[in-house]
Amino acid sequence: MSARKTKGDPLKIKDKAACRFDLVALGEVMLRLDPGEGRIHTTRSFQVWEGGGEYNVARGLKRCFGMDTAIVTALVDNPVGRLVQDLIYQGGVDQSYLRFVADDGVGRTARNGLNFTERGFGVRAALGCSDRGHTAVSQLKPGDIDWDRVFGGDEARWFHTGGIFAALSETTPLVAKEAMQAARRHGTIVSYDLNYRASLWKSIGGQARAREVNRELAPLVDVMLGNEEDFTAALGFEVAGLDEQASALDPENFRRMIEQAVKAFPNFAVVATTLRQARTATRNDWGAVAYADGQL
Amino acid sequence: MSARKTKGDPLKIKDKAACRFDLVALGEVMLRLDPGEGRIHTTRSFQVWEGGGEYNVARGLKRCFGMDTAIVTALVDNPVGRLVQDLIYQGGVDQSYLRFVADDGVGRTARNGLNFTERGFGVRAALGCSDRGHTAVSQLKPGDIDWDRVFGGDEARWFHTGGIFAALSETTPLVAKEAMQAARRHGTIVSYDLNYRASLWKSIGGQARAREVNRELAPLVDVMLGNEEDFTAALGFEVAGLDEQASALDPENFRRMIEQAVKAFPNFAVVATTLRQARTATRNDWGAVAYADGQL
Amino acid sequence: MSARKTKGDPLKIKDKAACRFDLVALGEVMLRLDPGEGRIHTTRSFQVWEGGGEYNVARGLKRCFGMDTAIVTALVDNPVGRLVQDLIYQGGVDQSYLRFVADDGVGRTARNGLNFTERGFGVRAALGCSDRGHTAVSQLKPGDIDWDRVFGGDEARWFHTGGIFAALSETTPLVAKEAMQAARRHGTIVSYDLNYRASLWKSIGGQARAREVNRELAPLVDVMLGNEEDFTAALGFEVAGLDEQASALDPENFRRMIEQAVKAFPNFAVVATTLRQARTATRNDWGAVAYADGQL
Amino acid sequence: MSARKTKGDPLKIKDKAACRFDLVALGEVMLRLDPGEGRIHTTRSFQVWEGGGEYNVARGLKRCFGMDTAIVTALVDNPVGRLVQDLIYQGGVDQSYLRFVADDGVGRTARNGLNFTERGFGVRAALGCSDRGHTAVSQLKPGDIDWDRVFGGDEARWFHTGGIFAALSETTPLVAKEAMQAARRHGTIVSYDLNYRASLWKSIGGQARAREVNRELAPLVDVMLGNEEDFTAALGFEVAGLDEQASALDPENFRRMIEQAVKAFPNFAVVATTLRQARTATRNDWGAVAYADGQL
Amino acid sequence: MSARKTKGDPLKIKDKAACRFDLVALGEVMLRLDPGEGRIHTTRSFQVWEGGGEYNVARGLKRCFGMDTAIVTALVDNPVGRLVQDLIYQGGVDQSYLRFVADDGVGRTARNGLNFTERGFGVRAALGCSDRGHTAVSQLKPGDIDWDRVFGGDEARWFHTGGIFAALSETTPLVAKEAMQAARRHGTIVSYDLNYRASLWKSIGGQARAREVNRELAPLVDVMLGNEEDFTAALGFEVAGLDEQASALDPENFRRMIEQAVKAFPNFAVVATTLRQARTATRNDWGAVAYADGQL
Amino acid sequence: MSARKTKGDPLKIKDKAACRFDLVALGEVMLRLDPGEGRIHTTRSFQVWEGGGEYNVARGLKRCFGMDTAIVTALVDNPVGRLVQDLIYQGGVDQSYLRFVADDGVGRTARNGLNFTERGFGVRAALGCSDRGHTAVSQLKPGDIDWDRVFGGDEARWFHTGGIFAALSETTPLVAKEAMQAARRHGTIVSYDLNYRASLWKSIGGQARAREVNRELAPLVDVMLGNEEDFTAALGFEVAGLDEQASALDPENFRRMIEQAVKAFPNFAVVATTLRQARTATRNDWGAVAYADGQL
Repeated sequence: MSARKTKGDPLKIKDKAACRFDLVALGEVMLRLDPGEGRIHTTRSFQVWEGGGEYNVARGLKRCFGMDTAIVTALVDNPVGRLVQDLIYQGGVDQSYLRFVADDGVGRTARNGLNFTERGFGVRAALGCSDRGHTAVSQLKPGDIDWDRVFGGDEARWFHTGGIFAALSETTPLVAKEAMQAARRHGTIVSYDLNYRASLWKSIGGQARAREVNRELAPLVDVMLGNEEDFTAALGFEVAGLDEQASALDPENFRRMIEQAVKAFPNFAVVATTLRQARTATRNDWGAVAYADGQL
Repeated sequence: MSARKTKGDPLKIKDKAACRFDLVALGEVMLRLDPGEGRIHTTRSFQVWEGGGEYNVARGLKRCFGMDTAIVTALVDNPVGRLVQDLIYQGGVDQSYLRFVADDGVGRTARNGLNFTERGFGVRAALGCSDRGHTAVSQLKPGDIDWDRVFGGDEARWFHTGGIFAALSETTPLVAKEAMQAARRHGTIVSYDLNYRASLWKSIGGQARAREVNRELAPLVDVMLGNEEDFTAALGFEVAGLDEQASALDPENFRRMIEQAVKAFPNFAVVATTLRQARTATRNDWGAVAYADGQL
Repeated sequence: MSARKTKGDPLKIKDKAACRFDLVALGEVMLRLDPGEGRIHTTRSFQVWEGGGEYNVARGLKRCFGMDTAIVTALVDNPVGRLVQDLIYQGGVDQSYLRFVADDGVGRTARNGLNFTERGFGVRAALGCSDRGHTAVSQLKPGDIDWDRVFGGDEARWFHTGGIFAALSETTPLVAKEAMQAARRHGTIVSYDLNYRASLWKSIGGQARAREVNRELAPLVDVMLGNEEDFTAALGFEVAGLDEQASALDPENFRRMIEQAVKAFPNFAVVATTLRQARTATRNDWGAVAYADGQL
Repeated sequence: MSARKTKGDPLKIKDKAACRFDLVALGEVMLRLDPGEGRIHTTRSFQVWEGGGEYNVARGLKRCFGMDTAIVTALVDNPVGRLVQDLIYQGGVDQSYLRFVADDGVGRTARNGLNFTERGFGVRAALGCSDRGHTAVSQLKPGDIDWDRVFGGDEARWFHTGGIFAALSETTPLVAKEAMQAARRHGTIVSYDLNYRASLWKSIGGQARAREVNRELAPLVDVMLGNEEDFTAALGFEVAGLDEQASALDPENFRRMIEQAVKAFPNFAVVATTLRQARTATRNDWGAVAYADGQL
Repeated sequence: MSARKTKGDPLKIKDKAACRFDLVALGEVMLRLDPGEGRIHTTRSFQVWEGGGEYNVARGLKRCFGMDTAIVTALVDNPVGRLVQDLIYQGGVDQSYLRFVADDGVGRTARNGLNFTERGFGVRAALGCSDRGHTAVSQLKPGDIDWDRVFGGDEARWFHTGGIFAALSETTPLVAKEAMQAARRHGTIVSYDLNYRASLWKSIGGQARAREVNRELAPLVDVMLGNEEDFTAALGFEVAGLDEQASALDPENFRRMIEQAVKAFPNFAVVATTLRQARTATRNDWGAVAYADGQL
Repeated sequence: MSARKTKGDPLKIKDKAACRFDLVALGEVMLRLDPGEGRIHTTRSFQVWEGGGEYNVARGLKRCFGMDTAIVTALVDNPVGRLVQDLIYQGGVDQSYLRFVADDGVGRTARNGLNFTERGFGVRAALGCSDRGHTAVSQLKPGDIDWDRVFGGDEARWFHTGGIFAALSETTPLVAKEAMQAARRHGTIVSYDLNYRASLWKSIGGQARAREVNRELAPLVDVMLGNEEDFTAALGFEVAGLDEQASALDPENFRRMIEQAVKAFPNFAVVATTLRQARTATRNDWGAVAYADGQL
């Protein structure tokens, strides 16, 4: 694996024509319930959409740029799971690797993730209510997915996962690692979006565990994505001289942090910031690339 | 407690004027998500309502008959829990005994119960998708509620709970028992709706456990409710001579079953059938009373 | 009654634990019909809410601050009245003192109040269409409500009514007076929101009658609420030196007007301005307190 | 006027080409508020339509048969009145004789009529809630409309009004009479739909007053419409031999009743039954004609 | 026709009282399909309205100013055409001259025009999708309408058409010319809104054809409307000295262009700019008049 | 090609595992506009779906049976075409062979097909309004699609088209023929649904042309689908002895007609009736197979 990247050489991506998928993503797809103009706590109806940090990348590339993408995930086989599937069909993301898990009828052994979201208005902040404990996807464990089928034989040019999937349970970091290793074995580029969410880590070890998990996965990553807060909170890099007066968004500080990151993980071919607000199902713009092949 | 009922005497109920509540119910209140005319697996919107087996009795008595009722339950303190509260306000059921539990932000430690329901149409059966594992109310345990406050000092004339609440977890049967003992201590009538749901019991011991739980609670019940299937499945009474030719709905067979039940549990002052379809939030008619004070 | 307030002493409020209600309000509850984003005169649908000047205080204290509040009002017992009741349930305001009046089937002898409201947009002003003549609540007369039941025995700590209720008919000022006298008799604090509406007074005596009514009720008030226009139009206090150049909102002018008011009505323990825009069903913020216990 | 109809001669109607309107109707146009699939007392939204007994005839002839029709009515000039106007535009009924009355801002002196209607479902009866007291149209009085302008110079071939308009107030029967006299003066055919509504007459004299009003207007009618109940209740004709065994719908009985009516009012050129259910805004079918020019 | 306008004399308009219509417009009425807050390419529902450049003038004058107006147009007689008719009824515009053309069942020989429109939001531009090829109105040809009936006998005071109608097909300019000649023959004022739409002209001759058509119609116009772009693109007048630095909106430049126009077409009594954004069905404000009777 | 089928041998279908698609369909996909409970001619909103005779087979096999299917069709590249694409994504049908045609901005040179549909209710028949003239798909001509790419190299096991596609224009029968020949060349099974629609053929040659087209394509078909009316109207087979007394649905008559068909076209391996009502986007059940491999 150390031979994967040579300083100054561009990252080698498989030929598009030879591959079935431009990108395969691994992550949760939740049912988003949206009260429209109203507020969650007083609404009488919800509109529904599908969404999820890693999935949104696959959906955006398909629907905005016409690339062929697929999602690796799991859903419970009940009407709510089938509704999420219906929404993924609309998203245009291939479902060949979607696993349906048996329903117990009451949502005790496995559930589908839900995400109640509400729009901010003026000074009122946007507000959500994530209901994603005990989901089918959080119960994925090593060996569940045949990764050699997913990445073998030029199936996929690029693999994408991230820190939300890794925060779902004790087992999902192991699945992410297994997938990344298989991807590298088959010459597939690996990208990872740190996407630190304190609430997800809170009940399974907190920030310390987040850093441990992300640091274990980082050596397998070609393209590391994240904003300044992600690098700090989720990987533990300190921005030197950062105090209340200095802005963390000062490009110079960010440059120094990236230098730290690349020194720690020389396997990073590209380090990029993502714009947090762009992480939606309908738009997914890559933010300003900060570092690529030894150049900022 | 044995002096509570004397054969031939009518059940003594506290004076209405003296009591704050005509009925206090113990049970889960779920958010019902209803796709209207469409189907769950292809809808793009849901209307919401609140509902729950035991709660519906309290709501129906309030809104259809003007009685004062209260619900003992627990919700997670997040926008979804507050929406259920908003709907309970609309239901007119008092919330003095509603407990809000802290939110972990992701629904891992405690959740609010959801119930996706779809209307049947012609030959298509009605279909639901219950998502009620790991809820705040299922985590209630003995000592959480101050039952002497609930039933003391003529607060309540009647207490109602049932087999759905008892099937939520390992601890809810203990809470039901604690509540029923307190009710009896304070002279409050106790009713219990067997309401057997195989899916709820499946992953926590199945029918055998259901019978064990219901048989432990039955000696504390004044008014036992249930249909024929409930008495058979949830209490274990056999309908003599029942085979495929004979209908279990034959009144004579039902009479014999009730005789068995009253012999086993002489504390039953009333045994009544409930009409299954009447268990909704908007209508709650008591079915044909089959046995009261020694008379069918 | 003269002994009620002693200069410099804070207003004495009954102990919360001892009382059933933190506040009892007297006023109309109307059905609000809202065309959403559209305009009334071209819409094809309305959303409905409930609302009313005095009621909104009771609803806001309940739903925003968790206080126990009740409304004294009257509705016609027809489906529209029952819909308003359904909305009051949702508001969480107790209905023990809600009177239902018989329906004549056509709305000739008594009606329920309606309020068609439309949102402003940019330069377009918000616009309403109040349809509240001949309502059941406007026909309330002295003797209809047993005020000793409402205020006796520590039922209520605070009573609130105002200038909208007093403007509904010839009889409502008499009902307000009767209620305020009973409240004072039982040691309940009395607040009154002047809330001057020229349109309501127009056909029953105009501003002259408004002043007469408000000046007759003012000696019974502990906490007088209103904005500058209310004090001027509804109580007749002149702001000295007010001309087109000087702003009525100059704090110094307002101070002088309050001094006049307190001199005229030494029973006022608190005089406060309310923010007009805050008088809605969902938010009810008390404005900047201007005077309390001899201090601004 | 006695020369108007000669037995055996068909009714003479003005030439279509010469007249501006095929029919001019006099009556109320109400805003109908319809909760869709829901029920009034629990809905959160209403769809709106316009409707009214006499108006529906004009609308149906225009939209289903392409005839040119006009409505004589009155509305309050506020957003609700303008919404009814918008709906009348959609109905295609000419508004040249629509009067707008000044708004008092609160609906005390004059209002627009409202009609909350709810669909029946299975055994649940359809249910309405009429809110039409104190309306602008009920305050019309003789002299308000220039009937010589309406009927003069071949403006109209047919005039239609009925027992709903006549039941709106003390003055509307006088307006109906004035209009019918003018119509006859100008050779315009006069039709009248008895359309008896007990609730409308209840508070202004009951059935006795209804009979008095209808019997005073009947001598001015060419085409009298009504079902059996209307002839009995609103005109006072008895169906001979009608008892619980005999059906009033027996054609022989109905024939005898019509004979009574024609004997009493020889001016009737046509007597027809109307199908009650056909009196809606979208369909208006004339029922089975029972009597015309001396022949059943 | 040369005697029609004498320099310095105001334009003579027929007496309002003598005429049936204040304005008769000739143009297409399309069904507008509007996805509300969403976007066309992802919506699941559309709201519908009616609209069209020339029609909107007739609708605005009727609904905003109460004038009597009529539309000359054609629709296919199928449910969509009847829906447009229903919307025109709501618009209050007279339909005496609306022609219904037979339906072929599949929209091959004649169709109704559709206009999918989407609102802009922030930086996102408003976006439409016009589907108006092969419409019934585009197939109108000389002789189809009896213009002497439309303009004869003081039917109409004003006739309005414009450059959108003229761009519908090869035959519509001929129909416009025929109508304008008849209008002038009967002393009816003629207005014309240039309203240049490049997309409409593209497949039938482009800008060159647009100029040819408009220059042929211009000598028949009394009131010529258009913004600066219209005069340039659709009539071919050059704004002297216009380059990238100079604004075409400079009043001096605009004045010179109008001078050119009046010199070329001395029949213009009024030349006015229209505000592009005012061309909607609900608001139709005439922009700043630039030239009238020899005066700017 | 004559060797394709040997009497008594079952039809040979390519191995599922070897093929990318279980079925490729050729046909139009229209935007369906549905007024919900209302009627087209008075609605104010439409819900949208996608649909089309041949496409519905591909969608049904994908969403109901999980098969991999693709559609060959053409759309105009404007927001409406993109909306149809969004709906096809939701349908789960592969779009690799979907062609986007340039938009002219006004729908004159090429359009997207629309289908306004309305549900029947009780005795009211369902009613539609098809607006599919001049569509992009109707302009497909031989050579536009690379059929050797579609069927070569085990891409597809089955090809489906039918009589609706063939009725779209002069060129679509040629495209169907070209596709069927290519399918046979590559060993792909060919099915054809006669689906006779008189309205579509009316303006391009009527029934005579329909028979000519279908009889030219029939020799290329393995599986011929249609109901009795289709075989009669679209292929010209007479049901012997069919008169008004005898039902065409008599199995014996149908048997004789199929015998005629198989004699005329010995290439038919299967002849099956389809249930007309099953031709919807959501359900697509194959009707009772009538003939297969020489057996009924």
